[in-house]
Amino acid sequence: MKISVIGCGRWGSFIAWYLDRKGHDVSLYGRASSKHMKEFQETRTNGLITLPESIGLTANLEEATKAEVIVISVNSQGLRALMTELAPLVLRDKIFVLCMKGMEISTGKRLTEVMAEFTDATCKTAVWLGPGHVQEFYKGIPNCMVIDSQEEEVKELLIQNFSNDLIRFYYGNDLIGNEIGGAAKNVIGIAAGMLDGLHLSSLKGALMSRGTREVSRLIKAMGGNELSAYGLCHLGDYEATVFSPFSHNRTFGESFIRGEAYTDLAEGYYTVKALMALSETYGVDLPITEAVYAVLYEGKDPKETLNGLFVRSLKEEF
Amino acid sequence: MKISVIGCGRWGSFIAWYLDRKGHDVSLYGRASSKHMKEFQETRTNGLITLPESIGLTANLEEATKAEVIVISVNSQGLRALMTELAPLVLRDKIFVLCMKGMEISTGKRLTEVMAEFTDATCKTAVWLGPGHVQEFYKGIPNCMVIDSQEEEVKELLIQNFSNDLIRFYYGNDLIGNEIGGAAKNVIGIAAGMLDGLHLSSLKGALMSRGTREVSRLIKAMGGNELSAYGLCHLGDYEATVFSPFSHNRTFGESFIRGEAYTDLAEGYYTVKALMALSETYGVDLPITEAVYAVLYEGKDPKETLNGLFVRSLKEEF
Repeated sequence: MKISVIGCGRWGSFIAWYLDRKGHDVSLYGRASSKHMKEFQETRTNGLITLPESIGLTANLEEATKAEVIVISVNSQGLRALMTELAPLVLRDKIFVLCMKGMEISTGKRLTEVMAEFTDATCKTAVWLGPGHVQEFYKGIPNCMVIDSQEEEVKELLIQNFSNDLIRFYYGNDLIGNEIGGAAKNVIGIAAGMLDGLHLSSLKGALMSRGTREVSRLIKAMGGNELSAYGLCHLGDYEATVFSPFSHNRTFGESFIRGEAYTDLAEGYYTVKALMALSETYGVDLPITEAVYAVLYEGKDPKETLNGLFVRSLKEEF
Repeated sequence: MKISVIGCGRWGSFIAWYLDRKGHDVSLYGRASSKHMKEFQETRTNGLITLPESIGLTANLEEATKAEVIVISVNSQGLRALMTELAPLVLRDKIFVLCMKGMEISTGKRLTEVMAEFTDATCKTAVWLGPGHVQEFYKGIPNCMVIDSQEEEVKELLIQNFSNDLIRFYYGNDLIGNEIGGAAKNVIGIAAGMLDGLHLSSLKGALMSRGTREVSRLIKAMGGNELSAYGLCHLGDYEATVFSPFSHNRTFGESFIRGEAYTDLAEGYYTVKALMALSETYGVDLPITEAVYAVLYEGKDPKETLNGLFVRSLKEEF
């Protein structure tokens, strides 16, 4: 299968490596100005992974779109710009696979909704979500992930061609739930890091229980399956997000509390804004999301705000 | 409120300390032969906690049953023996609070069902479940827990009298779900320890997602609310059970895989047998429970069995 991967960051380069190893004809695209792409072009490695010669490297977007399957792994807020750049090519009969977790803040749209604005009926979009650390996959430690799409045959095709011993794919059946769950887990990750920073790590148990619950209510209000919050896209990703030292969002939350410098903002920093808007639109109470928002954007006291979350007790669980 | 705590292990002694601190009139019971009780009687401490003089210490069971509220924190398999010993006292108008997580293997009964065999209509039973490490409560780190009972006024009374800044109680509304969820989390804890022992810790994400799912299905089949598996009694306890070095069940699973000696069996070792019976009775597939059972009782290869769990993919998530 001829596959291009757009985005040569940690995940994009891993996906190229993984699909090449599966025997596909893979090329990896990054902008000519990208530090990562320059590194790969010069040395074939980014320090974490070395890409074999069988993977084509390109900074030419038109060339990258010649494949039948195009995996996209870029920053969520950059998806619209990428698709705008692709628009003049009038792509047809492509399968796009979004391997990214987030929402578009400016519109509050899910990423497949953004895609729908730019693709015609001959193109199909799928999402690839779930747990796993790139660092551990490279060591051969397996994990489970999920692929979802509105098109049954696209799921079938991708899962049959993408699965192996390292990643076992489940069939998703709820695009709304999987996209919202995947995006929202980054906000829970920030909350987890804040609890760690406040030396309240043992509240991460309650965070998992109450966090899944609020995301579940939102998914249901949006017309999805409330159980999706408890699937691989969200709860299944908590090991990686709520507990792992590798988690970018968790680390960001912890650094924020400690007042330490952080080089770049975590995806959850944007997602929390989008979720606040959805909370309003759908009339769903999202207490953990609100707490993270209040701390990040309104300068509220973290200890009081996060501790306060769990004092909202003496009430029914479900 | 006059309260007795029966069982002077790690949890029993903590509960006595906690309720005394809340201003209740508390006594702690342990058998005269108990090593822990001897320690408390001689030194007032078990090395972890020092009990103030305001807490009565007794090895006289009849004296211990004079309180209006009797908290029981003993090994699940020992509950029937305790209640048999209490039977000649013909207790009336008591509130029993079970602060323990397990099931009776010989009968497959939930612990409140065992209690019902020994108590008349004037006595009420509640359960006290959820996350929290004794070691962290002593340091003042708060957590959320849940109290459930078939009697609304018992829940109300206990929650109003037991809550403070250290433990925030939620009202449970599903005794079946909370008891099964509380017991089953110990089995998931053993599975987590096995994954740690096999250097497959990153599969603990998928374990959380698939573990809650199977417990949820069992609860539903038994007539409970499937969401309870995602509440404090089960998922909410995963931080303490699946990730914490303090978790007895997790440590047991890890030691088992490494072939290291373990001084005593974890509660989940018994619960897994009871769950296998329920799986049969209710016709519910419990793949993680089966895997843990196969490794512990049938000598199956752990790596093949546990890894095999997650290879059962290429299928629908929900």
